[in-house]
Amino acid sequence: MALIVQKYGGTSVGTPERIEAVADKVIAYRDQGHQLVVVVSAMSGETNRLLELAGQISDRPVPRELDVLLSTGEQVTIALLSMALEKRGCPARSYTGGQVHILTDNAHNKARIQDIDAERVGADLSAGRVVVVAGFQGIDEEGNITTLGRGGSDTTAVALAAALKADECQIFTDVDGVYTTDPRVAPDARRLDRITFEEMLEMASLGSKVLQIRAVEFAGKYNVPLRVLSSFEPGNGTLITYEEEGMEQALISGIAFNRDEAKLTVLGVPDQPGIAHLIVGPIADANIEVDMIVQNMAPDGKTTDFTFTLHRNDYARAMEILQATANELGASEVSGDDKIVKISLVGVGMRSHAGIASTMFETLAKEGINIRMISTSEIKVSVVVDEKYLELGVRALHEAFELEQEAVN
Amino acid sequence: MALIVQKYGGTSVGTPERIEAVADKVIAYRDQGHQLVVVVSAMSGETNRLLELAGQISDRPVPRELDVLLSTGEQVTIALLSMALEKRGCPARSYTGGQVHILTDNAHNKARIQDIDAERVGADLSAGRVVVVAGFQGIDEEGNITTLGRGGSDTTAVALAAALKADECQIFTDVDGVYTTDPRVAPDARRLDRITFEEMLEMASLGSKVLQIRAVEFAGKYNVPLRVLSSFEPGNGTLITYEEEGMEQALISGIAFNRDEAKLTVLGVPDQPGIAHLIVGPIADANIEVDMIVQNMAPDGKTTDFTFTLHRNDYARAMEILQATANELGASEVSGDDKIVKISLVGVGMRSHAGIASTMFETLAKEGINIRMISTSEIKVSVVVDEKYLELGVRALHEAFELEQEAVN
Repeated sequence: MALIVQKYGGTSVGTPERIEAVADKVIAYRDQGHQLVVVVSAMSGETNRLLELAGQISDRPVPRELDVLLSTGEQVTIALLSMALEKRGCPARSYTGGQVHILTDNAHNKARIQDIDAERVGADLSAGRVVVVAGFQGIDEEGNITTLGRGGSDTTAVALAAALKADECQIFTDVDGVYTTDPRVAPDARRLDRITFEEMLEMASLGSKVLQIRAVEFAGKYNVPLRVLSSFEPGNGTLITYEEEGMEQALISGIAFNRDEAKLTVLGVPDQPGIAHLIVGPIADANIEVDMIVQNMAPDGKTTDFTFTLHRNDYARAMEILQATANELGASEVSGDDKIVKISLVGVGMRSHAGIASTMFETLAKEGINIRMISTSEIKVSVVVDEKYLELGVRALHEAFELEQEAVN
Repeated sequence: MALIVQKYGGTSVGTPERIEAVADKVIAYRDQGHQLVVVVSAMSGETNRLLELAGQISDRPVPRELDVLLSTGEQVTIALLSMALEKRGCPARSYTGGQVHILTDNAHNKARIQDIDAERVGADLSAGRVVVVAGFQGIDEEGNITTLGRGGSDTTAVALAAALKADECQIFTDVDGVYTTDPRVAPDARRLDRITFEEMLEMASLGSKVLQIRAVEFAGKYNVPLRVLSSFEPGNGTLITYEEEGMEQALISGIAFNRDEAKLTVLGVPDQPGIAHLIVGPIADANIEVDMIVQNMAPDGKTTDFTFTLHRNDYARAMEILQATANELGASEVSGDDKIVKISLVGVGMRSHAGIASTMFETLAKEGINIRMISTSEIKVSVVVDEKYLELGVRALHEAFELEQEAVN
């Protein structure tokens, strides 16, 4: 018998029929002897309906009241799912975030979980009940309703699993696991049985939109085994855990990529301490997120060249800001490109194997793909290339690292 | 400066535009220097939408979960109204029933308020905020969400007014006050400026559907001045208070009536102690509510005749039950009529004036209306007549007691 926390997203509970299907699935797990806590999102479309209502009242609704409004979405789902369970003779109890004391800070619309009082949930589980909890929401210390921001239901599930010391946290979604890369780009992409938290974090932040990053961080921090699996298809999905001793690890777990990137370069700035901050600071002050940053000595040996990437939507505004900064600093030139993409190899196996990066560069060179920027970390290598090479590059790398095959032990 | 609790029903907050209009109205009161607590219902149609969702899952949804579901309706409204107030620069805070500790018993779907902790609301009022509270809902001692049953928002408003010792509780609705009778029946019906709690209770229970009976009882019990007024039209509405010393009271305040009545008679039952219970008991056990009960000695002087009224919907079932009882008791006959109505004169002035009943009977006789049953209490006289005489009877009585005119002091 295991204690399992399951989370079903908006699509999985999008209609009363689908909620009934979730009830069947939950009961099938329970019939195997497991204890179950089920976290649900708002029915798909519901959050948008509520946002539209708010939009009819105000362009900028007060954050506190927006949370009061949006949190009703999940509350509807928990009630309906509990009704469906009870109809099937399965004792169930629904709880809002506040009712199970999911304590957050008071940052409305993007609150962070600080503590969970698992006592009430534990009592219900001991009494043989399935506990259904509203995802995405909590209360602050004063009892005000907060929300964790869109998609935050994953975090609720992981946090509950951590507080309850659950054996596994299962995230049911509309994909059946984590893939070596996007199958729409590389048709022979393969579903991974396992991946480490660190790899998943790199994959997620690089554009594989399977799980909320914060949920993965949380699961890693509290060592909650996390499984991604499909609401609609059978299968075991992908298990995300810590690397286990003695386990042979694949060199590369997957290839992530980001479309919609842009890069900005400023040439010939004085090479002095603090120059990076002088350049990036004004961009950050404008609430523009900078991704990769690369700095190189200029050919003259006295000045430095500075390049960074950001989201394409922020390109024009960042360019303006950078030009002003460049003038102040007496830089020789500012240039940019908003037709680039980023491709990243991710794998904890890199730590113990040399030559990954050079195989990557060689593979891309063979295809005639020019690398515009490189950035590396312990478990990933990212390159920036022209937009038009995205598909070709991902497919070539997928093949070169034989990701379509299971790792050989 | 007064402390006013206002309540706006589902029609008054039926669309975002109407919610904005309510915000304007609330601010107008605030600008007069009043402190305001606003209780709102679900937007009209919302409760039915939620019930339909539940109905798609289960014919008999668990009461606890139905409350979790339905309580989201008011939660949406409090958020939207607070947004509308804040947009207008008026500081506001919304609270669910649970958040302001509206403590109820645990009778889900028809809970009764037991206590309110007004501390939090008081603090907000002192800070200059308008407090917006979800009507119709509370929590039980274990923190489970409860609802007061449909229309219970009136009770929430009155209970808050009592707990806060408010100067007045204003119920905004789609009628502009309490009338001497239904204007659709008697076109010269007049809006009353004032009515006593007792009269209002008799009027409400007899079919004037302006206010929830429980809200009036509550207001009477805690002596909260209650005002009914229109959301859409200007005017002072009707104030419901205790009778004031020295105030000349009108003989009759109004004429209430109930359509959809039926009556059942059992003739010739043995006249023995406990006979009423033997007859009415089985009906009550079948959850059928009995209204008027009249018992008379039969012409033979040894047996008794027994008549009672009930809702027309329950007629067939009650008839079956009564026939079985009559057989057991050896009664001589059972008869019934489901084409009757009840007309009632209501007025605290009756207490000190004789002859009201006889004027009533005389008036009806003049119109050729046969009275089938009579029942009296301290402040009302009710008669049962054939359905076809309802309009004629009400109009004749309205005229006979000169209700179209203000009471003369």
